[in-house]
Amino acid sequence: MTSTPSERLRELGLVLPPPPRPAGTYSPVVLDEERAWVSGQIVTEAGSVVHPGLVDRDVPIEVARDLARRAALQALSALAAELGSIDHVRRFLRVTVYVASSPGFARQHEVANGATDLLVQVFGEAGRPARAAVGVAGLPLNAPVEVEFLVGTVPLR
Amino acid sequence: MTSTPSERLRELGLVLPPPPRPAGTYSPVVLDEERAWVSGQIVTEAGSVVHPGLVDRDVPIEVARDLARRAALQALSALAAELGSIDHVRRFLRVTVYVASSPGFARQHEVANGATDLLVQVFGEAGRPARAAVGVAGLPLNAPVEVEFLVGTVPLR
Amino acid sequence: MTSTPSERLRELGLVLPPPPRPAGTYSPVVLDEERAWVSGQIVTEAGSVVHPGLVDRDVPIEVARDLARRAALQALSALAAELGSIDHVRRFLRVTVYVASSPGFARQHEVANGATDLLVQVFGEAGRPARAAVGVAGLPLNAPVEVEFLVGTVPLR
Repeated sequence: MTSTPSERLRELGLVLPPPPRPAGTYSPVVLDEERAWVSGQIVTEAGSVVHPGLVDRDVPIEVARDLARRAALQALSALAAELGSIDHVRRFLRVTVYVASSPGFARQHEVANGATDLLVQVFGEAGRPARAAVGVAGLPLNAPVEVEFLVGTVPLR
Repeated sequence: MTSTPSERLRELGLVLPPPPRPAGTYSPVVLDEERAWVSGQIVTEAGSVVHPGLVDRDVPIEVARDLARRAALQALSALAAELGSIDHVRRFLRVTVYVASSPGFARQHEVANGATDLLVQVFGEAGRPARAAVGVAGLPLNAPVEVEFLVGTVPLR
Repeated sequence: MTSTPSERLRELGLVLPPPPRPAGTYSPVVLDEERAWVSGQIVTEAGSVVHPGLVDRDVPIEVARDLARRAALQALSALAAELGSIDHVRRFLRVTVYVASSPGFARQHEVANGATDLLVQVFGEAGRPARAAVGVAGLPLNAPVEVEFLVGTVPLR
């Protein structure tokens, strides 16, 4: 890939949403020694959770996968706000995808692909992280999907 | 803030509980290259879990929030035991709050504030971490809340 | 311990399984600056999950503990494939054990010991990580146990 991540984003026709505002006592992004921890992202619009409920019972898997993708875009927006540009991301190190799951749902990894497919589209192999996908009992504000990111950054200052 | 975290703790009238003892094959704190990983804290007294059960059905949210706060105090105690003093904490990087949630409970972020509000009271902005709050099906010994911490430390030797 | 981890493994009569193949858009292991993040391991044989279901209702705790142990062996296999040898692991920093739990199950920490007991057998005190054990609603492909690892490595090139 010769283009930069921000160029790729434009080529893909993707626009970053507004950076997420914290819904409690935490930072959207914490930077420390070439690492950036991004807080768990749930997808909101105008302050409300999009498609609340449990995946499978209330939210179809295709919708959940798209929410994971949008959670990744929100994370990129938070990183751009903190780092100046997503081009200062060196590598995605680890992603955890929490899926609020109705009993018996067993396709959390497919939901998770919504987030990590996007990262690979934008960052190439540097967007392919270590990953865990798990099914949880519930999430803040009834969100069906929450995604957390750890990133390696270029030296900043 | 001109006072140190340990001075702030005293000013707030807070006393650290005894450092937690591992309930299995793990370390309370692992130090490596100016980072400290603190194992998931559940609140116990004399070896028993305080207020066992699921949040909302068995444990009111106000109690759960206070348990998150006490889990943070336990973590500070574990860090003090390992680092010599909580003043050797440079910054809280990431906190994960697991809330054992009855069906439909959607206020895990408010429970999580119990932990991170305390960190900000004691450490100021250095206590404001990246955070994920999730609702889980159950926790060891029926604890309603478990909190895990990653900290940046001053250079140690 | 005077023997190396790979010698210990042999002395214990343990053989590493084939390295796990990713079931989605992620890397089995990501290396960065003397750290290795290992993706969440679920135990599979010939591409199928072993003992699917919820722990307690469908999968006895003794079986779950053994699956946690096998998940740790899979992680060692992934690390060996990426680092050349498990002897390039310097220290286990953090392990998260997700246990798909039937309602009321409260012994996730005992399941987790299956993974961390093995690490201590093979690596001695360097195998004793910070740990969180939590009960989740479900896991990919109905796996009863998923284990995630963060490791400090020797300097690599």
